[in-house]
Amino acid sequence: MNTIGIDLGGTNLRVGVIAKNGEILEQYSRPTEAEKGPEFAINTMTELIDKLRANHEVSAIGIGSPGPLNPLTGMIIEPPNLPGFLNVPIKSIVEEKTGLTVTLENDANAAALAEAKIGAGKNAASVFYITLSTGIGGGLVINGNLFSGAQGNCGEIGNMIIDPSGHESPGLNKGALEALASGTAIGRMGFEQLGITTGAQGVFQLAESGHTQAQNIIDKALTYLAMGIANIVHTLNPEVIILGGGMMKSKDLIFVPLEDKTRDYLYPSLKDSFVLKPALLDQKAGLIGAGFLPR
Amino acid sequence: MNTIGIDLGGTNLRVGVIAKNGEILEQYSRPTEAEKGPEFAINTMTELIDKLRANHEVSAIGIGSPGPLNPLTGMIIEPPNLPGFLNVPIKSIVEEKTGLTVTLENDANAAALAEAKIGAGKNAASVFYITLSTGIGGGLVINGNLFSGAQGNCGEIGNMIIDPSGHESPGLNKGALEALASGTAIGRMGFEQLGITTGAQGVFQLAESGHTQAQNIIDKALTYLAMGIANIVHTLNPEVIILGGGMMKSKDLIFVPLEDKTRDYLYPSLKDSFVLKPALLDQKAGLIGAGFLPR
Repeated sequence: MNTIGIDLGGTNLRVGVIAKNGEILEQYSRPTEAEKGPEFAINTMTELIDKLRANHEVSAIGIGSPGPLNPLTGMIIEPPNLPGFLNVPIKSIVEEKTGLTVTLENDANAAALAEAKIGAGKNAASVFYITLSTGIGGGLVINGNLFSGAQGNCGEIGNMIIDPSGHESPGLNKGALEALASGTAIGRMGFEQLGITTGAQGVFQLAESGHTQAQNIIDKALTYLAMGIANIVHTLNPEVIILGGGMMKSKDLIFVPLEDKTRDYLYPSLKDSFVLKPALLDQKAGLIGAGFLPR
Repeated sequence: MNTIGIDLGGTNLRVGVIAKNGEILEQYSRPTEAEKGPEFAINTMTELIDKLRANHEVSAIGIGSPGPLNPLTGMIIEPPNLPGFLNVPIKSIVEEKTGLTVTLENDANAAALAEAKIGAGKNAASVFYITLSTGIGGGLVINGNLFSGAQGNCGEIGNMIIDPSGHESPGLNKGALEALASGTAIGRMGFEQLGITTGAQGVFQLAESGHTQAQNIIDKALTYLAMGIANIVHTLNPEVIILGGGMMKSKDLIFVPLEDKTRDYLYPSLKDSFVLKPALLDQKAGLIGAGFLPR
């Protein structure tokens, strides 16, 4: 039966009816306005759910939210991207308001599930999805089932240590992948080395126009990213690795060099062990994946 | 029904009858004598299988072997620990000789399965097993099922990059976990820094007697190992992490500092997310796990 998928983002709140095949039958998008607190966002959410239920029979609700959160207790703990959402028992609140069962998961895990089931990982036995954005996260899907770990934190690869003598960003390990290779890291290097204040996008634009220093910044980030992906391949040997997230808007600059660099770091027997693919569902992955969560 | 488990090691070949509950009902051990080639080892193997089948009804055979190998094709590819075993189709050879179905897996994966099902990971939903020995390997078991990856190479964490400016060992990435934290690495540092030629065991003995430089060598290796384990926790959020392998003979020197160091590298929400445990089955894990493979 159809489900309600909810993509609770730092900027936008998307609520939709998701068919069994992943089709979005109807959807609404509203600003999250996280600064107004969780109650406001949850009210918007349930209002939209009611509107959708007027037109569709649905069996359950799935919510993808920024972490940290706990899928077992259905609690949003303290996401940096949702300031003010401190220990919010969103599962039980929404269950009480709607009478439907609610499943809560990390947003990257929800996107991973959508990409694995109907996106770039369709029909693969094992898929590791990586989101490259201001942060770096991921999710693992095995035989169509999300593996989210003991407390739902599988895929927190942003904190993977890549270079213990590398940059230290607040809240992360020194030399963590996210501190070295995320959009935030590229933007920071662009500011430090070139004085530009337009973030990663500015660095990508300069690089595209042939600016050598900007290209070097991206090359350095991709080298670290390749090490991170190689670590995932050696740890998990997944069949497909999918790259999504905002940084993939610059995929022409990223994809081929990243693939080449990654293979350089692999055991010979693993060099051709996986397929690296760009995500197919773009920003819809979170909403569709949320709808898949209850299944 | 009972199965035959085979632990094909670089030194010893163990063949046993494994009951459904993991009990070893009868077993034989012989020197592998790998230098005599795969045909010799396979003949020893089938001889012992015949002896065991005279006393026991068995339904299938599981073989744990050093990698690289391919569990899908049942082929041993080119293991450094089994010189001369080059592209050996061991599955089809043993199937033809015995008339029984053969399942082939990496030896660390087999040990992981045994520890997860009846050892230190019993009843846990997700288990990551790490073997610390001359090399470093691992295996992942989810809900009692081995996840061995697209080509059986899940758990090749020895080649995980931890410090790109670290030591380079042949066949491994520069600064790979195994190059920094294995028994081989500790032995190498003992030789380079202290001139001792008795390998990791010699370094552990000196450290135990209070030798500061030897203690520093071990501390350095454990720091890198903690980074590697933290990377596994952030990537997979397993419920239990099990440490096995020859280095665990010195577990009094290893276990507590390693646990403390690992938690230092974790997100606050992940610090208490897992239980670190020493392996319970010792060198029997490989044989028992091999017996579990066909199930």
